[in-house]
Amino acid sequence: VVIDFARELRLVADVLASHGVAAGPAALQSEWLAEADLRGHPSHGIQRLPMIVARIREGLIDPRAKPSIDWTRDAYAVIDGDRGIGPLVGTKAIDAAAARAARTGVAVAAVHNANHLGMLAPYVERAIERAGVVAIAMTTSEALVHPWNGTTAMLGTNPIAIGIPTDPPVLLDMATSAVSMGRILSHRHRSTPLDSGWAIDADGRGTLDPEQAQAISPFGGAKGYGLALAIELIVGALTGSALGQRVTGTLDSTSVCNKGDVFIAVDTAALGADTTARLERYLSELRDSRALDGTRGVTIPGDRARSRRQYNMDHGIEIPDSVWEQIVDLYPAAEKVG
Amino acid sequence: VVIDFARELRLVADVLASHGVAAGPAALQSEWLAEADLRGHPSHGIQRLPMIVARIREGLIDPRAKPSIDWTRDAYAVIDGDRGIGPLVGTKAIDAAAARAARTGVAVAAVHNANHLGMLAPYVERAIERAGVVAIAMTTSEALVHPWNGTTAMLGTNPIAIGIPTDPPVLLDMATSAVSMGRILSHRHRSTPLDSGWAIDADGRGTLDPEQAQAISPFGGAKGYGLALAIELIVGALTGSALGQRVTGTLDSTSVCNKGDVFIAVDTAALGADTTARLERYLSELRDSRALDGTRGVTIPGDRARSRRQYNMDHGIEIPDSVWEQIVDLYPAAEKVG
Repeated sequence: VVIDFARELRLVADVLASHGVAAGPAALQSEWLAEADLRGHPSHGIQRLPMIVARIREGLIDPRAKPSIDWTRDAYAVIDGDRGIGPLVGTKAIDAAAARAARTGVAVAAVHNANHLGMLAPYVERAIERAGVVAIAMTTSEALVHPWNGTTAMLGTNPIAIGIPTDPPVLLDMATSAVSMGRILSHRHRSTPLDSGWAIDADGRGTLDPEQAQAISPFGGAKGYGLALAIELIVGALTGSALGQRVTGTLDSTSVCNKGDVFIAVDTAALGADTTARLERYLSELRDSRALDGTRGVTIPGDRARSRRQYNMDHGIEIPDSVWEQIVDLYPAAEKVG
Repeated sequence: VVIDFARELRLVADVLASHGVAAGPAALQSEWLAEADLRGHPSHGIQRLPMIVARIREGLIDPRAKPSIDWTRDAYAVIDGDRGIGPLVGTKAIDAAAARAARTGVAVAAVHNANHLGMLAPYVERAIERAGVVAIAMTTSEALVHPWNGTTAMLGTNPIAIGIPTDPPVLLDMATSAVSMGRILSHRHRSTPLDSGWAIDADGRGTLDPEQAQAISPFGGAKGYGLALAIELIVGALTGSALGQRVTGTLDSTSVCNKGDVFIAVDTAALGADTTARLERYLSELRDSRALDGTRGVTIPGDRARSRRQYNMDHGIEIPDSVWEQIVDLYPAAEKVG
């Protein structure tokens, strides 16, 4: 099934409305799912909708949540998500941090009691568009990744996004795992071997057999593990979130979501046009630099998602039949949308 | 030559004093070099002293510098290093950020016009000891690392340190390059092959031949490149530092140092003992988790440097003859210290 962006937005919003979600949060959630599909990250796209609906039905997402902000210090906000839908809480947090940073220079928003945020890049992009800040977003998740030298999954895939206010903006958004669990499951489904360095078996040895994969490896060896752990601990320290194997609620429809999210915004208004021009010149030099033969050239984080977004905006978003069937089950009127 | 910690401290301070460095900065610089040797990072140890002295002689480090702090916003300090010795400027910056964060919740110190900071871990450790904050330090350096898919060195080795206030503290300190230039040079010196993934040749292809290595690879592939670039851009955006191939002055004795440094401190006083206990329990679970056979077990960033520090404290610091000869050239009295 191929649908266009506007239709995916409307479809998700309609499904959520039919489950009691207010118009504001429904619009944000549909934007976050449709943007992920548009940018070529279907793992964070409409295929997450059935789980979101299941969590609403189980009372684990409150469709009428009213997240609250407590500025415990002048540049530090504690956000209680009130079990709200992820993008409702996440946008409230990044908007607060970005607006406050304009006065204080830097601000932190530490979030607990929210649900899965979805893709992180759109949060830092939003902060750049609205406030021209440097923005950082971090979040944790269920334990799927093993520590370096270890044999057991004890860390989340712990993504980090970093946005830099250039034109176009630099938008780094990466998990600290070598690959996503979705990628491992897709190889299991198709019975194709994994790449080296993606996963370990029950004894902790690297495996190429998707059936034997017990934990995902951190990207980049010991350093990637160090970064994944630092994110787990920063989020744990600032939000009081659960840690490691105690994290629940982003992949199931049975448990309250007890992970945390941290946003940092740093104002750059004092820099002036000179600094921005210098950053943009450097980015041009990188893009124009001599590339290794046979590669698609040197790119800047955000470039690929931007060109994929444009392509899908023009050609529509492809949704696999298996996902579409679940959407139609949720919302029979979807059949007419496709 | 084997010398003990106290003697290395005194020796470095004496050399710096004989070149006009005031007692305070001389003590800080000697602490930073001796701590690096103690922790098993000789690339940031006393072997850097001849370059520091050469830069003082050339007027590129001002031994009487008076770094200044301008709080442009309540939680944002612009630090002009006044061409001061790295650890003098770096400690002033991290101390300011950590002290201010106690009131504002988070604070940034953005440094320009300093010299090479040396190891980053001791800065975040100092902030933890003095103020119990979560601390992040980032810095840039001369272009030695190629972009992903690229063929030319256009990024610094751009290290990041992250400290978490547990007992003992978590101290991540890592370059975003696969290895240091020192490691490549040491293989060149000994005519031993590089590991795969460390470096590329002039055509941009991976090489194991240290003579052919033209640029170091980022750690962790495309993701490590993304992180290295994000650090280059954050530092560039916040400090107005030079970028990429325009960076000079941490590896030469001919140019003013035009890189930048960024420190972020986040207060954790509001957390209470519960959160700290939870973080420490999680770290214990990681250390005690089943390790892959044949490895030294699961460790936490900072563990290895701590045990190496204790060993070298007990057994003395080994300094290669070639380095020692340079020290004696600088300061003939060193011969009696050894």
